[in-house]
Amino acid sequence: MQDTTAIPTDWLDEIKWDNQGLVPAIAQDAASGDILMMAWMNREALELTAAENRAIYWSRSRGKLWRKGESSGHVQQVSEIRLDCDADVIVLKIEQLGGIACHTGRRSCFYRRLEDGQWVSVEPVLKDPDAIYGHKGDPSA
Amino acid sequence: MQDTTAIPTDWLDEIKWDNQGLVPAIAQDAASGDILMMAWMNREALELTAAENRAIYWSRSRGKLWRKGESSGHVQQVSEIRLDCDADVIVLKIEQLGGIACHTGRRSCFYRRLEDGQWVSVEPVLKDPDAIYGHKGDPSA
Repeated sequence: MQDTTAIPTDWLDEIKWDNQGLVPAIAQDAASGDILMMAWMNREALELTAAENRAIYWSRSRGKLWRKGESSGHVQQVSEIRLDCDADVIVLKIEQLGGIACHTGRRSCFYRRLEDGQWVSVEPVLKDPDAIYGHKGDPSA
Repeated sequence: MQDTTAIPTDWLDEIKWDNQGLVPAIAQDAASGDILMMAWMNREALELTAAENRAIYWSRSRGKLWRKGESSGHVQQVSEIRLDCDADVIVLKIEQLGGIACHTGRRSCFYRRLEDGQWVSVEPVLKDPDAIYGHKGDPSA
């Protein structure tokens, strides 16, 4: 029996990918509105993100899909996907499992604030990165 | 008499500009937490933004500094500048004068939401773009 419920992908064609096939994706805490991080997505990453309701980025440094939380357990559950007027930036409204988005162990990657010509860290480390990434089998990581 | 109050710019050296000398800058409404837009900054744009407490971007399409609001009057007053862990993305906490960040006349550029495989506009046009950009001498624009 044929699958007659083809999933439409026209919405992916509307995205204006950059010359590397990527767009920036901003992860925003759906409840608090806090901006937690920005990463990059290619077409496959965005399609999988929408299909799984889980943030999947493209790691430019590793050159492969990055299922956020795959090492840390800090999965981002996606409740909403937004596109901007130029169709070249994505916003994900998410719930951040574990409450930590940043690899430094902080809630948000934007933990430095400009104060009198200096970047000052203004958010605490909630968990030692060694504890986050050192025990990959630990479901609490 | 010499100026002895040199403004430090070391903080600009800490930014990891991309190969075009740019970083993404996310403008977030300081009061509501809503993400209003994302644009790009070069070193001069970020330095001026910090000096004037007003969002100044680099227009990639026009190849010049873009003093947000210069045509529309929709200036963004900056209350806080944040930097992420990788030092390659900026968040500006702003007050959006006129309540409209988007050139389409909407509050936010992220007015399209993915619903069942389609981008659906979910935010109203608050002001006709012709009215915003058609009367450059009009202080209400």
